[in-house]
Amino acid sequence: MPNNLDPHVLVIFGASGDLAQRKLVPAVFDLFRGGYLPKNFALLGASRTDFTDEAFRDKVVFNNEHFDQKDATDEQVKEFSEMLFYQDLASYDSEKDIKALAARLKKLDKELKVGQNYIFYLSTPPKLYSTIPAALAKAGLNETKEGWARLIVEKPFGYDEESAVKLNRDIQTHFEENSIYRIDHYLGKETVQNLLVTRFANGFFEPLWNRNYVQSVQITASETVGVGSRGGYYDESGAMRDMVQNHLLQVLAHVAMEPPIRADAHSIRNEKLKLFQSLRPITRKDVKNQVIRGQYTAGVTEKGKEIAYRDAPGVPDDSKTETYVGMKFFIDNWRWAGVPFFVRTGKCLPLKLTEVVITFKNPPQAIFSEYDDYAMSCDNQLIIRIQPDEGMALEFGMKVPGEGFRVKNVDMDFFYRDLTKNDVPAAYTRLLLDCMKGEPTLYARGDSVEAAWAFIDPILEAWKNDEVPIYSYPAGSWGPLQADALWIGEGAGWRNPTATLTDKKHYTKQ
Amino acid sequence: MPNNLDPHVLVIFGASGDLAQRKLVPAVFDLFRGGYLPKNFALLGASRTDFTDEAFRDKVVFNNEHFDQKDATDEQVKEFSEMLFYQDLASYDSEKDIKALAARLKKLDKELKVGQNYIFYLSTPPKLYSTIPAALAKAGLNETKEGWARLIVEKPFGYDEESAVKLNRDIQTHFEENSIYRIDHYLGKETVQNLLVTRFANGFFEPLWNRNYVQSVQITASETVGVGSRGGYYDESGAMRDMVQNHLLQVLAHVAMEPPIRADAHSIRNEKLKLFQSLRPITRKDVKNQVIRGQYTAGVTEKGKEIAYRDAPGVPDDSKTETYVGMKFFIDNWRWAGVPFFVRTGKCLPLKLTEVVITFKNPPQAIFSEYDDYAMSCDNQLIIRIQPDEGMALEFGMKVPGEGFRVKNVDMDFFYRDLTKNDVPAAYTRLLLDCMKGEPTLYARGDSVEAAWAFIDPILEAWKNDEVPIYSYPAGSWGPLQADALWIGEGAGWRNPTATLTDKKHYTKQ
Repeated sequence: MPNNLDPHVLVIFGASGDLAQRKLVPAVFDLFRGGYLPKNFALLGASRTDFTDEAFRDKVVFNNEHFDQKDATDEQVKEFSEMLFYQDLASYDSEKDIKALAARLKKLDKELKVGQNYIFYLSTPPKLYSTIPAALAKAGLNETKEGWARLIVEKPFGYDEESAVKLNRDIQTHFEENSIYRIDHYLGKETVQNLLVTRFANGFFEPLWNRNYVQSVQITASETVGVGSRGGYYDESGAMRDMVQNHLLQVLAHVAMEPPIRADAHSIRNEKLKLFQSLRPITRKDVKNQVIRGQYTAGVTEKGKEIAYRDAPGVPDDSKTETYVGMKFFIDNWRWAGVPFFVRTGKCLPLKLTEVVITFKNPPQAIFSEYDDYAMSCDNQLIIRIQPDEGMALEFGMKVPGEGFRVKNVDMDFFYRDLTKNDVPAAYTRLLLDCMKGEPTLYARGDSVEAAWAFIDPILEAWKNDEVPIYSYPAGSWGPLQADALWIGEGAGWRNPTATLTDKKHYTKQ
Repeated sequence: MPNNLDPHVLVIFGASGDLAQRKLVPAVFDLFRGGYLPKNFALLGASRTDFTDEAFRDKVVFNNEHFDQKDATDEQVKEFSEMLFYQDLASYDSEKDIKALAARLKKLDKELKVGQNYIFYLSTPPKLYSTIPAALAKAGLNETKEGWARLIVEKPFGYDEESAVKLNRDIQTHFEENSIYRIDHYLGKETVQNLLVTRFANGFFEPLWNRNYVQSVQITASETVGVGSRGGYYDESGAMRDMVQNHLLQVLAHVAMEPPIRADAHSIRNEKLKLFQSLRPITRKDVKNQVIRGQYTAGVTEKGKEIAYRDAPGVPDDSKTETYVGMKFFIDNWRWAGVPFFVRTGKCLPLKLTEVVITFKNPPQAIFSEYDDYAMSCDNQLIIRIQPDEGMALEFGMKVPGEGFRVKNVDMDFFYRDLTKNDVPAAYTRLLLDCMKGEPTLYARGDSVEAAWAFIDPILEAWKNDEVPIYSYPAGSWGPLQADALWIGEGAGWRNPTATLTDKKHYTKQ
């Protein structure tokens, strides 16, 4: 269903970098193949590397291992490549750079008649996130006379609450909030968006989705890989900044927010903000009881032998950066009062998966207990698989055939891949298309980002000041044992599957 | 898990008949194979045919096409056959018959040391259901001094409310209510019993199981066959007596009853009775609006060409016996007030299946309606398949991958056969075992049977007096079109699947 998008130029700052090659250019190509791009369109790469247009096209199209031609003809790839241009910059914000960029855009605008519509994509080191918008403003590119200007900001958005607030203020000086698109690629995932449909398009789930029926909620995003060669970068951020503050809190918002007035950006993002504002603060003295940080030591994962995090290249020998976070917290509103939420993420864990598990309360009375000890073992769980095996499973008790009423856990399964034969669009493809349409629903709003940081900040403070220990866990395990203790008195426990469904072949429909 | 059953003799009246051959002897053999039978056990066939023990064994074991030896050795089959005996009777209740039977039992009792424990199974024409218990009483076999005496009564239990009440009084004169086992083989089905586990062993379903969330409930039991050569018999009963009054109202009770205090016979059967007592009476003047009777005409079913019911052997040309019933009614209690229940059954319908469909209300607000017309099409349904493809499916809306929030119906499936590798015991096997244990939960209690008849009686009266038309439907269709009109204003409509899941191979797990 191609759209009639406005003609525009997509300017990618940091275009010689990894992200442009791996994700952004392939995503724009997907839009081209799908017939989504407007006729008058250009992608203008910009960075400090000295490329000609041709050299840039070679790098991101013809010699790009991440560029998959799929069913397109060579002719079509050539046609696409000719929409790509390049502008080299000395420092992004020198007088000369700004003039050169403005002149180039003016030229493209004239040639392609894009009506002064521009998307500026900041795929640069974070320190430039304030610099570039200011430079654009100097050239008058933040508010074009005839068209529109939108700004996409890559993660990380800030390093803590203070820096996120400052970054918001810097950017908002030059761009309206509704022209700022803070990317969180988790929000581009179909399964994350589907959380809203699951909840609000069905009469079945929402009545159960509250403190009366839900025992606990857990969100897991596990990786099997270690830091590899990215130790230097990773050691500056850690699992909390890399995964929890952005991606997992966004997933949480989809799971826990109130029904929005409408399915539009304003309504949905209002509810997310409310949800973040309802998080019961974890104060620095709560950290030891509610948040476990861990760091992997040497071990064996499904990828093979893994060296300890502290031995990885670029990581200091005495690093206290967490490669694992397990946390428990509460949401102080009418819907969720008293229901514990658990979130964890980590590297070098046994499986790569992202999932949400809603554990429902047991029935109020165990009428079959004379036949069975089901009350001890029968958890009603709804497992929402974000990745892999995208889909849902509902675990519940059924009668074991034969005498009496013995109960056994079984599950009903739904696989998202059965829903459609079409490709599920990649997250970046979806998100870029939305920005081109001026549809910000799946982008994080400034106030939400600040609220999420406000929740995380005291934990980072406590860690920085070493108020709580960092626990080790061997690579290939489900994290430090101390994280299991978060569950004491709360039932269920972390769901630690032994294999993904894709691995268990018998679970997978043909 | 073999039981230590009391030694006993199982007396089958009508042992030369069809049921003994098709179901009862094979069921007892299954119990033998499973090691359930007590060491001291005999099956005593009794009827008016003149058999020796050997001739009886030949008929029901060695020359019985319904007797499946399965994994048993010839040795074991022989051992089993030697537990079978036969007593011929002239009329069931002559002085001579009674004496002969008593003498035979005394002899078996002495030889096998069964301690005067007897089960009397009435598998005879219904007119003998009062006769035989009285005869047993004359011989003092209804209350043995040392042991116990139990009576199993086959269906139909009565022909209307009056005759059912009379039959109860007749039998209850000689047997205590808790020694009377009224069989309804639907209650022996695992999937019917599982309705209770589904509802009461899970925290997930029961909160939704009421007027707040349920839009409608429908129960279907469809057959593809016509009356065949049984027209003479069938024309006396019809679909309402044959299926609705007993089987489908029992299924209804499992679906709709309140949680029992305990999972024992007394508590469960109390709740069923309450449910029947809560049915809003369909008065004779309500019949035309709430109950549709139909009769098939010639047509084509999956079995091939079918002649019209009135042309079947044994059926009068002007028969007004219904081969289809579709009805709508209400349950006047706090749980179900205002929720329409729909029940239908029929012969010569497109598929053979029994299922319960709970349709849940739509969400209170259609927030994705700008993207989709889902509000018109997205039914949340829980489909409980009693047979075939025993199991459950939950239909719900998921997001269609791509832009916006388009919604599509999908389903999660559970197949009961995945739960266990063991054979699911046949209904009669399970029911006989329960009676041997003295466990009456899965048998109908006298007061419930009367209450069920009381509900059905006015409908039968209205039909007898021809107060409403009987509609025709071609064999191979889903019944008279008039039955669709029962749904006006109630949403969903009859679920008329085009194939069973077994036929749709891609639905079936390998």
